[in-house]
Amino acid sequence: MTRHKVNFLPHEKAIEVDAGTNLIRAAMESGVHINASCGGEGVCGKCRVIVESGDVEGGVSDMLSSEDREKGYRLACLSSVKSDLTVRVPTESSIDARVLNLQATARKTARIRELNLDDLKEKGLFVPPGEKIYMELTPPTDADNIADVTRMVDYLRKAHDEHRLEFDLSVIRKVPDILRREDFKATATIARPVREDGKNRVVNIQAGDTSDRNYALAIDIGTTTIYGEVIDLVAGRVLTRYGDFNGQLSYGEDVISRIVYSEKEGGLDTLHERVIATINTVIGKLIKKSKIDPDEISTVTFAGNTTMTQLFLKINSRYLRRSPYVPASLIYPPFKAPEIGLDLGDHVTALVYPQVSSYVGGDIVSGIMGSGMYNDEELTLYIDIGTNAEVVIGNKDWLVCAACSAGPAFEGGGIKLGMRATEGAIEDFSIDPVTFEPMNVTIGNVRPLGICGSGLIVIVATMFEMGILDNRGKFNRDLDTPRIREKDDVYEYVLAWADVSGTDRDIVLNEIDIDNLIRAKGAIYSGCMTLLSEVGLSIGDIDRIILAGGFGSYVDLEKAMTIGLLPEIDPEKVIFVGNGSLMGARMSSLTNKIRRDVTRTVKRMTNFELSETNSFMDNFIAALFLPHTDMNLFPKLKARLEERRSRMDELPGG
Amino acid sequence: MTRHKVNFLPHEKAIEVDAGTNLIRAAMESGVHINASCGGEGVCGKCRVIVESGDVEGGVSDMLSSEDREKGYRLACLSSVKSDLTVRVPTESSIDARVLNLQATARKTARIRELNLDDLKEKGLFVPPGEKIYMELTPPTDADNIADVTRMVDYLRKAHDEHRLEFDLSVIRKVPDILRREDFKATATIARPVREDGKNRVVNIQAGDTSDRNYALAIDIGTTTIYGEVIDLVAGRVLTRYGDFNGQLSYGEDVISRIVYSEKEGGLDTLHERVIATINTVIGKLIKKSKIDPDEISTVTFAGNTTMTQLFLKINSRYLRRSPYVPASLIYPPFKAPEIGLDLGDHVTALVYPQVSSYVGGDIVSGIMGSGMYNDEELTLYIDIGTNAEVVIGNKDWLVCAACSAGPAFEGGGIKLGMRATEGAIEDFSIDPVTFEPMNVTIGNVRPLGICGSGLIVIVATMFEMGILDNRGKFNRDLDTPRIREKDDVYEYVLAWADVSGTDRDIVLNEIDIDNLIRAKGAIYSGCMTLLSEVGLSIGDIDRIILAGGFGSYVDLEKAMTIGLLPEIDPEKVIFVGNGSLMGARMSSLTNKIRRDVTRTVKRMTNFELSETNSFMDNFIAALFLPHTDMNLFPKLKARLEERRSRMDELPGG
Repeated sequence: MTRHKVNFLPHEKAIEVDAGTNLIRAAMESGVHINASCGGEGVCGKCRVIVESGDVEGGVSDMLSSEDREKGYRLACLSSVKSDLTVRVPTESSIDARVLNLQATARKTARIRELNLDDLKEKGLFVPPGEKIYMELTPPTDADNIADVTRMVDYLRKAHDEHRLEFDLSVIRKVPDILRREDFKATATIARPVREDGKNRVVNIQAGDTSDRNYALAIDIGTTTIYGEVIDLVAGRVLTRYGDFNGQLSYGEDVISRIVYSEKEGGLDTLHERVIATINTVIGKLIKKSKIDPDEISTVTFAGNTTMTQLFLKINSRYLRRSPYVPASLIYPPFKAPEIGLDLGDHVTALVYPQVSSYVGGDIVSGIMGSGMYNDEELTLYIDIGTNAEVVIGNKDWLVCAACSAGPAFEGGGIKLGMRATEGAIEDFSIDPVTFEPMNVTIGNVRPLGICGSGLIVIVATMFEMGILDNRGKFNRDLDTPRIREKDDVYEYVLAWADVSGTDRDIVLNEIDIDNLIRAKGAIYSGCMTLLSEVGLSIGDIDRIILAGGFGSYVDLEKAMTIGLLPEIDPEKVIFVGNGSLMGARMSSLTNKIRRDVTRTVKRMTNFELSETNSFMDNFIAALFLPHTDMNLFPKLKARLEERRSRMDELPGG
Repeated sequence: MTRHKVNFLPHEKAIEVDAGTNLIRAAMESGVHINASCGGEGVCGKCRVIVESGDVEGGVSDMLSSEDREKGYRLACLSSVKSDLTVRVPTESSIDARVLNLQATARKTARIRELNLDDLKEKGLFVPPGEKIYMELTPPTDADNIADVTRMVDYLRKAHDEHRLEFDLSVIRKVPDILRREDFKATATIARPVREDGKNRVVNIQAGDTSDRNYALAIDIGTTTIYGEVIDLVAGRVLTRYGDFNGQLSYGEDVISRIVYSEKEGGLDTLHERVIATINTVIGKLIKKSKIDPDEISTVTFAGNTTMTQLFLKINSRYLRRSPYVPASLIYPPFKAPEIGLDLGDHVTALVYPQVSSYVGGDIVSGIMGSGMYNDEELTLYIDIGTNAEVVIGNKDWLVCAACSAGPAFEGGGIKLGMRATEGAIEDFSIDPVTFEPMNVTIGNVRPLGICGSGLIVIVATMFEMGILDNRGKFNRDLDTPRIREKDDVYEYVLAWADVSGTDRDIVLNEIDIDNLIRAKGAIYSGCMTLLSEVGLSIGDIDRIILAGGFGSYVDLEKAMTIGLLPEIDPEKVIFVGNGSLMGARMSSLTNKIRRDVTRTVKRMTNFELSETNSFMDNFIAALFLPHTDMNLFPKLKARLEERRSRMDELPGG
């Protein structure tokens, strides 16, 4: 078989592959990331690259614009290697973890719920899954030569009322020497059971008194990003936070693409290894940033959606995407962190949040638990918008949930120049009401590369309120501006001309993009309405909305209501929790109560398959407008639009 | 550093070592076994080898006889390598597992207690630690798409009243595919908890109905030998048995030598690896011989003395041989077999018998449990004679125990030509009362190489009853036979002349050997008497004696009483259980009741350090005679001796 060398720029990473190898696969193998929302199936059109030297077979597609084709762009997933190649990966494919670790821009409407340790302590619930106890044992004598472990057990029972202790083998191995290092003064780390009558596992022993240093890790395994935190279990606060892009990203941007890849030969192993590698990177950074000794970490808690959780645990996920959509398990046992390749000691217990169904996973359960919603009187609507969107309604008495097939529009998927909320993404926008000239605000204040989810909402809402878009999401063809134009049979608005953009092309938003956004917001809105009607309630019955998801923290609430993504509700009733998945993982690191309650909570979460309910399709179609077919559902917006119309009517020439 | 090649014969195993390397260490590293009771400390004199070519430094010692020295023998442990060498290891150092696997010769007085499955079933106690349940699940549909594991849990609860189930991660990984292999018909293996309210761990799943194939392994980790059994948990019977020499044997023959070695750099790792390697050999042979599928093994139960258990689990054992003699732990948690390097699947739970103290270990506990003594009304004296000897007295209400510093005389240790019960060992013996010519019976009916423990007892008892030895263990100097002679200032009896022996030398028993035997039997007898007096009892109160240990199965009961090893008791009250350690491991493979009772039993076993009791030294000194200073303790023997004396007096010339 002929072999060719492929050199990827600007990374300068080279790989030798067989002739005929798919170019995106060559990139995956060399560790170079190329955007490919669809996982290399040739349908998203995002994986454009420039072949600077050498020949590829194929790669041309209608998904590429006429200019792109002229400039030599090819779709990597449709190209196969014919010779030695130099391939330039454009800026929009770059993933840089730095942007994930910038301080979030505060939104005026945001009310982030922080963990409340005082509250936990007051209620006697500050019992982390891993606790440390300092022991001053009496050294053995001829007359008292019981086994070292028995001596510890006796002491812990008498001095600390500890019972049902079981020692890990790895700890027993350490006990004799550690006890004798500081004259039988030592600190034991005890992993608490989920059930109160379960065993208390002694998982570590350290010489002397180390009880003032006890840490937990909380990790959110997102489809796109992986965030981790170090939690100081003595002070009860977050020490450090770090995020990175999920190493699986090169294998597809959504869970379906990942599952498809996992079904290929060796695919499951690869995806498992990649996510473990990312998690290990995050753990390494967290330990370094917080300057803690890894021996002082007693637990690590993970939360992720069902697919992410199964791939993380190396569980065949093919049945998740095939009717009748059956997950392997809802609940996972605690295990030792090194068992699945995590760079943590044998004494670290790994805990994994349980799932509800194939599409309502541990990330949602984590949010429900961490926000306290599962235990509150208030009737709450919980919406998590990430690579997909999930909705939960209920309170301490009942919970219903559903996954909405919203798709990744809010993370830039399905939007021609959509992108994740990284440097260069337009995140805020305003428009001159007279000239219709835009003002773009980008993340990092650099030249615009594309549009992120929160930016998209602001742009569409602004254009809609200003009459540039109608309620079907079509541009007003009558406006006198060069920015609205027809291109390849599609109307688009030029947000930034090529000469001020960060790429070599105009940054545009077209009607297909807007249609995709409307379908996405319609899916979420109609998901909420369908769930409400299934339980015989309406939006007026809801006491509060909890908005979760990295995207959620940045969204402008009024604009989200303007496009009909969210029902119109008193903004004071909306709580932004940011990364709900990470929040729950953090909270259950601080109190075992959550771990005790979660199994029962998962069992009482009734999952609805929206497509199987009678009302969903009607609700969905009614929601495919800005903001909705029934404007009476959005009375404040209706009033604003009417006021604007009357103002416009008063203008000269109006 | 100069390097030299050492070639060991007859193995033809060569190794290159630094000049100056100790010869016995070179043998250890090359995997060649050389007898070294003392672990290479230069005091036992057993490690003689012939240096056939090349030079060694040192190696000459008083421990070698004058003939040995003339023939070129050196003690390997005192020799260091000076040049390339050819070293012949003599026959007495050969260890051949074959002899361990011969059918035991039945003794007329032996009443081996077999496992009694019917009895267990009758009492409802036939609940092995690993059970299999066949499941016929309803395949999922759109309307019923609960997680696979939840489906299993629901089925097991409804159809089999199974509760508190927890699935191992390794099982969850298998579940989705295995369930779909035979249309949701599958067999689950469930590991039972020790406490009745503990978790039932689902540790394996297999497609279809495999519930008729469920096996356990029971393994005795002896200081000298490792025996294993395959137990059919459906039929409730032993399928196969296999034994091999403990690979640690080259590092010392008793536990003290092993601990000394384990304290050297890397020593603990080496000893751990060697015993694991032997166990893996035994497991491999067991699986091959019984033709079972390793996937059908659900548990493996280990029993061994405290040192063997700690080395097996790679636990620092230095504190076991240093005052105040503290073991690391009494109880060990169940763990997954591969965790410590065993060649078994991840689904196999490894269970380890608990210890009582540094010198009363899991092998004894196992015997107490397996024999049912811990649960019986009868007052029992349990004696286990192995590389050391331990004594337990008690019944279902109380138990006391002690280790006797008997030393390894019964396994050939401390006896000039002593050897383990392998081919060529004299195991039975008689003598012509007129000519004093002996008749030796050897294991395997080959030329004699030496004397094993049971042979030693028969020889000494016979000689004592015939007046060849007096009650101090001295040869009758007046007898007219060339077989009794003085050699290097020590009196000895020639059991076999060199020309009929299996070696190049006379097989002899000398007065030092007999003295060592008397000290050994005196330690055991006085141990029993001291324990009895500590609890205010005498031998007449004992309802039965259980005699355990590989050696125990072969011993002639009357002869053992003649030398005063055992108290004189109705032979009908003596039960031989053979390998008591293996018996307990086997029994707890059949019924979880033993695992439930063992923790409580260990806690109520009161351990006596004999050397710290007031009466021990008096008892010991009184027992340093054949059979004892007080002949009234042995009335039957006394009568026989008196009868013989009067018969002798009647003989002409008597």
